[in-house]
Amino acid sequence: MSNSSLFCLAFGIGTRNKKGEWLEVYYPAPSFKPLTAFSDTVSAILNYTGGNKTIELSPEIISDLILALKSEKNAEQLHVLETLKTSSCPLVACFLETDDVMTSTPEAYLKLHLLSLRHVKPNETNLEGIFALLPNVAWTSQGAIDISELNEAQLMARTRGEVLEVSSVDKFPKMTNYVVPSGVRIAHTARVRLGAYLGEGTTVMHEGFINFNAGTLGSGMVEGRISQGVTVGDGSDLGGSSSTAGTLSGGGNIVLSIGKDCLISANAGTGIPLGDRCIIEAGLYITPGTLVLVLDEDKNPVKKVKARELAGMPDMLFIRNSQTGVVECRTNRKSIQLNTALHAHN
Amino acid sequence: MSNSSLFCLAFGIGTRNKKGEWLEVYYPAPSFKPLTAFSDTVSAILNYTGGNKTIELSPEIISDLILALKSEKNAEQLHVLETLKTSSCPLVACFLETDDVMTSTPEAYLKLHLLSLRHVKPNETNLEGIFALLPNVAWTSQGAIDISELNEAQLMARTRGEVLEVSSVDKFPKMTNYVVPSGVRIAHTARVRLGAYLGEGTTVMHEGFINFNAGTLGSGMVEGRISQGVTVGDGSDLGGSSSTAGTLSGGGNIVLSIGKDCLISANAGTGIPLGDRCIIEAGLYITPGTLVLVLDEDKNPVKKVKARELAGMPDMLFIRNSQTGVVECRTNRKSIQLNTALHAHN
Amino acid sequence: MSNSSLFCLAFGIGTRNKKGEWLEVYYPAPSFKPLTAFSDTVSAILNYTGGNKTIELSPEIISDLILALKSEKNAEQLHVLETLKTSSCPLVACFLETDDVMTSTPEAYLKLHLLSLRHVKPNETNLEGIFALLPNVAWTSQGAIDISELNEAQLMARTRGEVLEVSSVDKFPKMTNYVVPSGVRIAHTARVRLGAYLGEGTTVMHEGFINFNAGTLGSGMVEGRISQGVTVGDGSDLGGSSSTAGTLSGGGNIVLSIGKDCLISANAGTGIPLGDRCIIEAGLYITPGTLVLVLDEDKNPVKKVKARELAGMPDMLFIRNSQTGVVECRTNRKSIQLNTALHAHN
Repeated sequence: MSNSSLFCLAFGIGTRNKKGEWLEVYYPAPSFKPLTAFSDTVSAILNYTGGNKTIELSPEIISDLILALKSEKNAEQLHVLETLKTSSCPLVACFLETDDVMTSTPEAYLKLHLLSLRHVKPNETNLEGIFALLPNVAWTSQGAIDISELNEAQLMARTRGEVLEVSSVDKFPKMTNYVVPSGVRIAHTARVRLGAYLGEGTTVMHEGFINFNAGTLGSGMVEGRISQGVTVGDGSDLGGSSSTAGTLSGGGNIVLSIGKDCLISANAGTGIPLGDRCIIEAGLYITPGTLVLVLDEDKNPVKKVKARELAGMPDMLFIRNSQTGVVECRTNRKSIQLNTALHAHN
Repeated sequence: MSNSSLFCLAFGIGTRNKKGEWLEVYYPAPSFKPLTAFSDTVSAILNYTGGNKTIELSPEIISDLILALKSEKNAEQLHVLETLKTSSCPLVACFLETDDVMTSTPEAYLKLHLLSLRHVKPNETNLEGIFALLPNVAWTSQGAIDISELNEAQLMARTRGEVLEVSSVDKFPKMTNYVVPSGVRIAHTARVRLGAYLGEGTTVMHEGFINFNAGTLGSGMVEGRISQGVTVGDGSDLGGSSSTAGTLSGGGNIVLSIGKDCLISANAGTGIPLGDRCIIEAGLYITPGTLVLVLDEDKNPVKKVKARELAGMPDMLFIRNSQTGVVECRTNRKSIQLNTALHAHN
Repeated sequence: MSNSSLFCLAFGIGTRNKKGEWLEVYYPAPSFKPLTAFSDTVSAILNYTGGNKTIELSPEIISDLILALKSEKNAEQLHVLETLKTSSCPLVACFLETDDVMTSTPEAYLKLHLLSLRHVKPNETNLEGIFALLPNVAWTSQGAIDISELNEAQLMARTRGEVLEVSSVDKFPKMTNYVVPSGVRIAHTARVRLGAYLGEGTTVMHEGFINFNAGTLGSGMVEGRISQGVTVGDGSDLGGSSSTAGTLSGGGNIVLSIGKDCLISANAGTGIPLGDRCIIEAGLYITPGTLVLVLDEDKNPVKKVKARELAGMPDMLFIRNSQTGVVECRTNRKSIQLNTALHAHN
């Protein structure tokens, strides 16, 4: 069997507001670059003829799909469809023929799933216009609720002696209510948005934060903030409250990346990309415009440059000299070793 | 119709502990400076004769209120009362004749609602003694529970195969379980207390925090902490983990305010009020006692002053010179532009 | 009645995955160093003959225990057993003869309870190997769920029109779903792990964090991060986003402690232990290797030392001189006074 020409095909279950507009869609098992047999079967039954499209599924159509997929022995998709079929919630099939620009809320949600499921890496998929496609939603103990319907829902809940817990009012939901990738720990899930990419062996502690289209490419300890578009290499450690300047807030147009085996210490931050094995000392923030005194291996001054000129270089150790106040870049001779007991995920 | 002399009148539904003491009250639609016709009608039925008072509502009384308000065509209050009437939870009418000192838990909750509903701004309402009026409460998936009743409630829940989720043990609840003002996003609601004031167009990211009696007066991006009493002007941006020193913790007696179009960068902080268009560079904390070298527009030294002498001035750019360690105040020539896509709330 | 030789005896109710492996255990009322009469009775009925052991409890055995304890008038344990008896969840008795190395998940959970219940202080109990004994668990609105069973649980919930809220994916649960000690406020409970030790009069604000085997020994205001192994003395204040370097991440092998009446200001941090009445100014991070200029009471330079040489000394005030960039250690002449209204817990 060969891969079909589709970028992705997924069955989902979602929520609509009282006007019938989509608020969100959950895709239990998106099929990324699906096999031809599977996508042809589904396309035929749903009369799909191409493009990026969302097609609503009736119980009858689902029965047809189940029947057709049974002969193909596609156990995973069969299980999803058989389970979804029992639901009275809105059901869809979402086809992405290409990674082209998105045009609907269900498509945007599928793109975010693909990132968190590790099918695509940050900055590798087209997310243009995603803010406009994601409605601002109240994420509650009763699921997604349209903001304009929230007050009434709370009043009704209170009248019943309950509380409608409103966990977030945001365009992006938390990742873990949609996807929990393998081999990770996320101490406090409210701080990882759907669309985050967490490499196997990543631990996100309580102070860690990962935006959509951002994350760790391998193992790592995240107690700092990974802004939109930022990636962190394998074996790196972001200390508590450490900061990476994203393009959305504050930063310029450079997309930041942190190399492998780096340590951004607690309360430190960077506005420039870093190569492998770099360290920033606790409490020091390197902005692109910071004038930095570069020292050689014997700690002799070599040159004075703006930090942006050091962007992406490896083996740098940044400190602020506590006797002169000068921000220095020395050569990092230590390698960072993550605590292995801490990083075991069983 | 003219405004009555009342400061506020509101119907609420609340929770009491097993001793009958109030834990909290939710007011779906407080009537701020209510019309005379409305407040006169309610006062007559409830025998209210003045002062700040909380009156419990029986189903019979609510029926009388509904009947009377029907002839007034007060649709909003009618809907609230008709819905509340179906509940077996404790119901109240809370009258605030004036903004005078509060004397009960229901009054304190009403004051906090008024802030979050934008009827009053931070520091404009009398909150004296509020800590003593707010009991410490366990905020749980079953609603508000008295701390002394919590262990038993958890044991009972576990025995049923459930978990009593205890989200907070605090005097203040999260705002969004009571009020979600229009035009805001709050990525992680646990960090915004009831009594916070969020201007239209405010985005509070995961790292943002807003205390009661504090907030944003217009649009803004909040990834830092807005302490009790602190206000932030329209168009300002508080970077990740940035800090504003409140009067409760650390600071002195000055109430801090941040002007319009300011940027407190990531991991920075201020202990002095700032005027419009000020910037503090990433990682720099300005305390009132920080000695600051003031430079003119050509970067020539002008004077050396304690930061508190610069309080409230506009167009300041604070940096720590990375070649000398000196904290400098330069003239800010850039204007901050918030990312408009990011701030669209649909 | 004399104390038995047992270290601890507790009845618990827990969760197992589909393979029958323990995910977690809740102990409503552990008996620390139990009286001989009680432990002898229980031991006899459960055929316990020594060692650290977990014994599962059938309804028949519980009935026997209840009968036996009735004659002893042990009201607290009787109430626990009578309540647990009604449950169909897995029930256990956990015996810790000594504080020796743990060998099972139920034992590990009991040790964590003992810390949060204030029976043992941080660093006073043997937690060796705890990471390996704690499975990584999805903490959800339906309780603890094995990671491998999570996707199916979410799919089933969504099909019913519900959302399975996944609050945390971690080896450690939040403390407050197990233990809420007396006299504390915890504004945001997701940031305090089971095994944290909170002294009476501790307020943990939204930005505060306390790891297991760490905490406050008395009253205190915690808006910063208390890392594993770190203790903070009575009356100390950790400002917003302040950091204490733990042994697990970043730090070396020294276990940090902070003395009484200290103030680690907002965005500051320490990598060295501090004695009583020390202050670190806002935004300053002291690492063990920071070169510090020590000044005498008249602010005259005395010596230049690495910060680690100042470890544990009292009455130090650390600042970075804003005119020279030099990190200085002055003598702290102010005493910190916590805001009493703020710290009243009613």
